[in-house]
Amino acid sequence: MILPLLLPLCAHATEGMWLPEQLPELAPALAEQGLEVDPARLADPLADPLGAIVSLGYCSASFVSGDGLMVTNHHCVGGMLEYLSSGEENRYRDGYRAPTRQDELWVGPTGKVWVVESITDVTEEALQGIKRRTTDAQRRELVDRNEKALVAACEAARPNRRCHVDRYDGGGSFRLVDALELKDVRMVYAEPYAVGQFGGDVDNWMWPRQGADFAFLRAYVAPDGSSAPFAEENVPYHPAHVLPVQPAGVSPGDFAMIAGYPGHTNRQQTAARLRWEVEEGLATKAELMAGVDEILHHHADRDAEAAARLGASINGVENGLKLYRGELEAFGASDALARKEADEQAMRAWVAADRSRQARWGADLAAYDALVAEGLALQGRGRVPSYMVWSSDLLSAAHTALRNAQEASKPDMERDKGYQQRDRERLEAGLKRFERSHHLPSERELLAYFLGRYQQLPADQQIAALDALLAEWGGVEPALERLYTDPALLDEGYRLGLLDAELATLTASQDPWLRLAAALESFLGEERATAKAREGAALRLVPAWYAIRRAWATEQGRPFYQDANSSLRLTWGHVQGYAPENGLLALPQTTLAGLAAKAGPAPFDIPADLVADALTGPSHPSADPRLGDVPVNFLADLDITGGNSGSAVMNGRGELVGLAFDGVWESIASDWVYQDAVNRCISVDSRYMLWLLERSEAGRRVRAELGLE
Amino acid sequence: MILPLLLPLCAHATEGMWLPEQLPELAPALAEQGLEVDPARLADPLADPLGAIVSLGYCSASFVSGDGLMVTNHHCVGGMLEYLSSGEENRYRDGYRAPTRQDELWVGPTGKVWVVESITDVTEEALQGIKRRTTDAQRRELVDRNEKALVAACEAARPNRRCHVDRYDGGGSFRLVDALELKDVRMVYAEPYAVGQFGGDVDNWMWPRQGADFAFLRAYVAPDGSSAPFAEENVPYHPAHVLPVQPAGVSPGDFAMIAGYPGHTNRQQTAARLRWEVEEGLATKAELMAGVDEILHHHADRDAEAAARLGASINGVENGLKLYRGELEAFGASDALARKEADEQAMRAWVAADRSRQARWGADLAAYDALVAEGLALQGRGRVPSYMVWSSDLLSAAHTALRNAQEASKPDMERDKGYQQRDRERLEAGLKRFERSHHLPSERELLAYFLGRYQQLPADQQIAALDALLAEWGGVEPALERLYTDPALLDEGYRLGLLDAELATLTASQDPWLRLAAALESFLGEERATAKAREGAALRLVPAWYAIRRAWATEQGRPFYQDANSSLRLTWGHVQGYAPENGLLALPQTTLAGLAAKAGPAPFDIPADLVADALTGPSHPSADPRLGDVPVNFLADLDITGGNSGSAVMNGRGELVGLAFDGVWESIASDWVYQDAVNRCISVDSRYMLWLLERSEAGRRVRAELGLE
Repeated sequence: MILPLLLPLCAHATEGMWLPEQLPELAPALAEQGLEVDPARLADPLADPLGAIVSLGYCSASFVSGDGLMVTNHHCVGGMLEYLSSGEENRYRDGYRAPTRQDELWVGPTGKVWVVESITDVTEEALQGIKRRTTDAQRRELVDRNEKALVAACEAARPNRRCHVDRYDGGGSFRLVDALELKDVRMVYAEPYAVGQFGGDVDNWMWPRQGADFAFLRAYVAPDGSSAPFAEENVPYHPAHVLPVQPAGVSPGDFAMIAGYPGHTNRQQTAARLRWEVEEGLATKAELMAGVDEILHHHADRDAEAAARLGASINGVENGLKLYRGELEAFGASDALARKEADEQAMRAWVAADRSRQARWGADLAAYDALVAEGLALQGRGRVPSYMVWSSDLLSAAHTALRNAQEASKPDMERDKGYQQRDRERLEAGLKRFERSHHLPSERELLAYFLGRYQQLPADQQIAALDALLAEWGGVEPALERLYTDPALLDEGYRLGLLDAELATLTASQDPWLRLAAALESFLGEERATAKAREGAALRLVPAWYAIRRAWATEQGRPFYQDANSSLRLTWGHVQGYAPENGLLALPQTTLAGLAAKAGPAPFDIPADLVADALTGPSHPSADPRLGDVPVNFLADLDITGGNSGSAVMNGRGELVGLAFDGVWESIASDWVYQDAVNRCISVDSRYMLWLLERSEAGRRVRAELGLE
Repeated sequence: MILPLLLPLCAHATEGMWLPEQLPELAPALAEQGLEVDPARLADPLADPLGAIVSLGYCSASFVSGDGLMVTNHHCVGGMLEYLSSGEENRYRDGYRAPTRQDELWVGPTGKVWVVESITDVTEEALQGIKRRTTDAQRRELVDRNEKALVAACEAARPNRRCHVDRYDGGGSFRLVDALELKDVRMVYAEPYAVGQFGGDVDNWMWPRQGADFAFLRAYVAPDGSSAPFAEENVPYHPAHVLPVQPAGVSPGDFAMIAGYPGHTNRQQTAARLRWEVEEGLATKAELMAGVDEILHHHADRDAEAAARLGASINGVENGLKLYRGELEAFGASDALARKEADEQAMRAWVAADRSRQARWGADLAAYDALVAEGLALQGRGRVPSYMVWSSDLLSAAHTALRNAQEASKPDMERDKGYQQRDRERLEAGLKRFERSHHLPSERELLAYFLGRYQQLPADQQIAALDALLAEWGGVEPALERLYTDPALLDEGYRLGLLDAELATLTASQDPWLRLAAALESFLGEERATAKAREGAALRLVPAWYAIRRAWATEQGRPFYQDANSSLRLTWGHVQGYAPENGLLALPQTTLAGLAAKAGPAPFDIPADLVADALTGPSHPSADPRLGDVPVNFLADLDITGGNSGSAVMNGRGELVGLAFDGVWESIASDWVYQDAVNRCISVDSRYMLWLLERSEAGRRVRAELGLE
């Protein structure tokens, strides 16, 4: 009886995160695989359907109504729901559903949407001034200045811009992206955590899955239509492009594609870099993260207020932890590293075997290998101090203030990226937002943990200024007591004021947080200087590495794609299951029956009425006749990574049939290697989204706005 | 490409552990399902093929050669391999392969094989003397004596007999089983632990599976052909019946059946009894077992000698622990209990709705319910003291001696079963065997653990004699110090001598172990007396309960079968996969590729040469063309339980195609409830067995003896 579902398992898996500009070369394959619209439409990021795809910075989203309604993943709005929570209302746990437009809630100053309005090749401009004799240090400086100048000009040209330059081919080519920045984002609809992230960390990266990992947001603008910060009188934004939601979902064997903003992959890295990660990097990161996870959990498990404040952080930490451990397990259990090494050896032999290739790339390849080896010796040096800053909102604030003051003393165009005038608003938002999410008891324990870890580091990673400070304060415990006794940084006015303080004022301050930040910065600043020195060499050598990789791919008849870099990409494939292991088959779809069967204690604690409704799935009009139930999640061989979360899954006609939200366990190492047989992404089916929306007034309002009532 | 394997998923699951005598009534269904031999052959336990099936007491086995070669599960010979291990040779870990017949090693005094030679209905004899006015106490006494007299007569009639009476219908009918006891069992072939029990506790109860859970033993007899204890000059036993091994294995959809000795199931128990188990029993047992497991592991992980001695015990404890936890999880996650309750309610309503049924059963049903309720109030009372005795070889020895002396003072026919003259050899074997497996440091810690648990029991389970003894000895720690300082029981001569000591001598002894045993016995003896008093009532009432259950099954058109009671049973079904959960499909077979893929650290640490050979599976002559590899394990909807381990899986022609060794996680609660959709047993495919045998001289000797060279 399960048989019919399996028939369409036949499509060829299609590795690759493609730039829209590559579409013409890929058009024949796409048409053959099932794309029904003109491939040329997909080559234009500013036309339908790609024009409807936007970035939230760390996630992707899509406009789905002419009134600025957007859909993204539930797990992309966790921080927003945390911001909307307080002691009385735990919206992180309970979700939020606005029954009317007036009830839509501003998600806070860090909620932004970027609508790309142009993408321009600026390779010539970015490399301007570089000559044969340019040193590596000058090269970095030139590219950095050129990029900042391009961004400044772009943002000056029109209001409410957010521009940036994306690097490709390791610095061989550059694209200027010009985006409209929308600053007033409001929460429209998010299911309770137990429904939206059904299975929590237990099911994260796992199939079978029954997540309702979607949420609706709305972008607002000033009454005149221009982008504006949050204001009561703001009105919905009217996007130029909107994705239609297809209420029929998708079926096994169907063509599917994803457009979104994948963050970062390492597939073009050298095998040596991967080997280091497998042998050293992953275990160290996993071990540090496990310590953080234990501390956060300890607090969240005992205190409801802590749980509400730490929920999104714990989610992030546990996702990372599971990722690192999963990658370790994956490389331990597979020959992926050996195969990458063999392929790279073959590529190197191919270069060496031909005199003209050797002449063209040989020297650069040797120099690049040396650069990578040198980099591996430095890898992980700054990890503990960096994690220390990252783990503490108070230390982050102090360090941000210090860094800002360092850079503010220079002319704007000479400042490090991230600390220019254009970054001021973001820095302020970060300092404001923290009010709602910090949790001092766990922060203090994390700082103690990282200081303890710091003290175990080898001699060449000891920081004289930090040691002196700890000695002055009488050791770690008294230091923590001093730091956490009425910290001035808890006052928002004081915090924001630090952004205007002179560097000399900050370094002379007796605020223990500023002193701790300065002590750490004595080390982190040196690390940044080292990295800058290496960046110039990388800009010179990595383009050659990319050229070799590209030529080798062409030699083998494979199209070549760039590693993800948060720019708009397209991936396509088919809805299909896979064999997770010998003797087991992952079916391509789950249903409401599976949701009901898995309901139970947290993280499966969905409301009883939802369980009862789920059991009536077989008689629902949107039940799939072949499944005999309403589909919930589905698998497809689409090539995605972090940053793709919230991406629309589209059918061959460019209609939204689901939302991608995860990968399967067997593909957890896909940031490093893609494996045809097991690389699957997990998406929520539009039929499940619409089925859930039916169940409340707020949901029915969203359905109506999607044109489905 | 995985598709072809799935086609035969269509057969109807067949619940039931059938008595051979039920075969005539089931013959039409069997023929329809795929049985090729005459069903009448299966009705005769003394003919082919059932005649080749024997019992090892706790496991089943089959004769596979005319020279007494038997095959059973690897996990059934763990204790034997432990017995064959010493400080230098860890055969529990390394397995044992006898290159010649001279190398076959005697597995010790507890290794026995029982070859059933007749099964006789003795209901009339067993109930002889029972009249309307017989009290419950008299009833128990009468049945007990009748059974003992039947056994005594049976064993007196021919030499080397082991007879016993099996109760059916809760005491409504009885069968006398007359078996030849073979006492010289030798180890022929067992793979290393990592191969035979590949995946260990991690994979226990799990699918996919790649276990080589088989081992070959040989039964020896005196040169004149009579059963005899171990002696060098003994010769192979020649069984009357032998199962042919089918080297082609089985395929999905194929008919399959199992004959064996399933130990104990509770499917005919009341729903109230099950509810108690779910709400109280399982959690308590799991918690106690977890404590034991932790202590044993603590020692085995740190000390190779301890690991060799404790391996089989840890395996047993972990299997139990996983079972209890799995059953708890299964009942928590499913509505099995509710469905059993609903079915039972319907049955009770059906009885109440009809005057003649009510007249016939009503009173007995009410009385039985009262008896069950009373029993539940007593359940678990003796658990901690019983576990205490079980966990300590020294305490067990002392307690056995004490019990033996208690009973030895009575005429043989009045002694409790287990302490008659016929049991003497077994008691001696138990006291001898312990030399090889005891491990004092862990035993001592276990005793401390259980004494601690005892002290937390409610007042009505406190034992005055034990409290007095502990007080006299100054508390638990000094008591342990006294008990474990040069215990006399470590001397085999002393131990065996205790079996001949008078009760008065033992109770007057200052041996601290005998004193501790006596203190516990003051409680355990009372518990036994209570149980005996209840047994008489059960013998009167349970047959009525069975009669109702049988009539209710007939009313619903279902054949009725008895709960497992270690007697010979037959179950049949088909090779087929199942859906472990929504979105996942368990394929019916695993292959050598799966074995190689899972190889890694313990418990997956198979030798590198085996991994290398496994990768050549696709080109092996026994590779299944549809799988493209040699099959390793397979699933079938056969209804088995503990005691069935080692059972031959036969095809429709009665040929051995595999060996059953486990159930899947979703059927872990099957001792209580059978679920068609997920009840699957896991077996090792004969092709994998033969493939492994090819790899060594000792294995090729076995293959040749099977007629396969």
